[in-house]
Amino acid sequence: MDYFKSYENLEVHRLMLADKSRMDAYQSFINENAALFSGKIVMDVGSGLGILSLFCAKAGAKKVYAVEGSEMAKMCETIIKDNNFSDTIQVIHKAVEDIQVSDIEKVDIIVSEWMGFYLLHESMLHSVLFARDTFLKDDGLIVPRIANIYLSPVELRDFKSKFDFWNNVYGFDFSSAGEAERNTTFGQAQIENIKAQDLLAEEQLVLSIDLKAATEEDLESIIGTFKFTFKKYGVIHGFALWFDCIFTDGENEETEVTLDTSPNSESTHWKQTIIPVPEAFLVEENGEVNCKLYLKRDGRSYRIELEHDLDS
Amino acid sequence: MDYFKSYENLEVHRLMLADKSRMDAYQSFINENAALFSGKIVMDVGSGLGILSLFCAKAGAKKVYAVEGSEMAKMCETIIKDNNFSDTIQVIHKAVEDIQVSDIEKVDIIVSEWMGFYLLHESMLHSVLFARDTFLKDDGLIVPRIANIYLSPVELRDFKSKFDFWNNVYGFDFSSAGEAERNTTFGQAQIENIKAQDLLAEEQLVLSIDLKAATEEDLESIIGTFKFTFKKYGVIHGFALWFDCIFTDGENEETEVTLDTSPNSESTHWKQTIIPVPEAFLVEENGEVNCKLYLKRDGRSYRIELEHDLDS
Repeated sequence: MDYFKSYENLEVHRLMLADKSRMDAYQSFINENAALFSGKIVMDVGSGLGILSLFCAKAGAKKVYAVEGSEMAKMCETIIKDNNFSDTIQVIHKAVEDIQVSDIEKVDIIVSEWMGFYLLHESMLHSVLFARDTFLKDDGLIVPRIANIYLSPVELRDFKSKFDFWNNVYGFDFSSAGEAERNTTFGQAQIENIKAQDLLAEEQLVLSIDLKAATEEDLESIIGTFKFTFKKYGVIHGFALWFDCIFTDGENEETEVTLDTSPNSESTHWKQTIIPVPEAFLVEENGEVNCKLYLKRDGRSYRIELEHDLDS
Repeated sequence: MDYFKSYENLEVHRLMLADKSRMDAYQSFINENAALFSGKIVMDVGSGLGILSLFCAKAGAKKVYAVEGSEMAKMCETIIKDNNFSDTIQVIHKAVEDIQVSDIEKVDIIVSEWMGFYLLHESMLHSVLFARDTFLKDDGLIVPRIANIYLSPVELRDFKSKFDFWNNVYGFDFSSAGEAERNTTFGQAQIENIKAQDLLAEEQLVLSIDLKAATEEDLESIIGTFKFTFKKYGVIHGFALWFDCIFTDGENEETEVTLDTSPNSESTHWKQTIIPVPEAFLVEENGEVNCKLYLKRDGRSYRIELEHDLDS
């Protein structure tokens, strides 16, 4: 098996397969809605090692196209075979954009785990929309259906102490290094697990994407303005972004499932994304901050900008 | 301050400066032997941000050459200045091999933190030996003076469970991926923190380097044969390498300091280095294993090979 340039690829897949919130959301929606999958044609966009395809096949899908562009497709094929689902699951070792329309049937359901950090970072969302427009029947189902991005100002005690470290290194002043680290760090978003008590205000919805309806244009440039009211006294070190996904057939609310990556839920491999502010500042209970968030698409990722000003 | 391509460089330095075992060893040797440093000329080979140079200057060195080839030299210079040691410490932004003999004085002491994973991995040892041969007075001091590498067979319960994960992924058999991960992992040494109870036998000394005497030839190819007697029943998953360093002037034993990176000591950023065996095997208390270890130099690093056979 020399499929892999390095074992890190499999480490990443193990990390994702061991992410209980992620896995439980897909598994429970598919299992509890087996009737939706039974006898249907499914496409799994970016199947990786094939776990979602296996869930769908086991739930009774007639046919599953497991679409995987990377070399992982070969291992996916082996695993599908080892689990005796080769008759149902067809691995297509291609980017979904490269599949000829004439080569496969239209599908009833698209299932995909396409989400990246803060939902959109290097995500496969654009491939899922392409798959929808090209291969999904008009009344088809997309799993998950809805994705929401949230924003909240946060206090990060650990983050702060990281820079304070430099102020006294065995009795010496290394604050120039601390300053340099601050300057480089503040230029880039940080992926960190924050705690519910780090949230200084009620989170606000930045964007809600309905995967049945969203267009590429909707996602080109995302701008939002927000006013946060502080629920407690604290220090703002930055703003946190996170997301949730809602699994629903749009009808049966009882079998809806939510995959939530917020600091209020069990931590996931997505953690939260921190946009640090250049200078930490104190806030008072019931004080307010206005901010404007820009997410500008840049290839498969986004450039993030955030402006804020404190109301006096 | 655009010295840095990314803040990761500073993260690495922060990690090393926060490594208490590492820092305490250097600091306590230099402080407790201030008389050795007082009025002397010191070279700090690979000074990084300059902490060892600062220790030496504060201990009374007359002159310290802080030799740093990377861009970190500029930040080092700033920190030296911030701490008012610019008169004593001269930052030389060069690889030590590029310094002209005529440009600096011969030195009384070489101080260096040159150690890598399992001591030798991407270490600066060869630069320290070059500095010794080129710039150190005949009766000069090297800090640290002695470095020892150790080997022991180990049981790694976590390591094992890492691969077991694949046997049952939400009811499916992903063992092909587990097999692939095993095969790629076992081709490469792993840096892990192991526990004292993971050691299945008394460690054995692989190599002891006296930095006053060692030659490049001594370090070209290191071969050792070992017989380990198991102190308990267990499963061998691999062999662990680690090192210690002895700080000594060769005379005053009372002021000797040991920096120990063994699983029996407080953990350091060097952790231990595991050479996994292709197949884990059971061992009995008082049973024995013979093994042969090769460390073959390959540029700044080493290729590791280990052969073993269990005595029946």
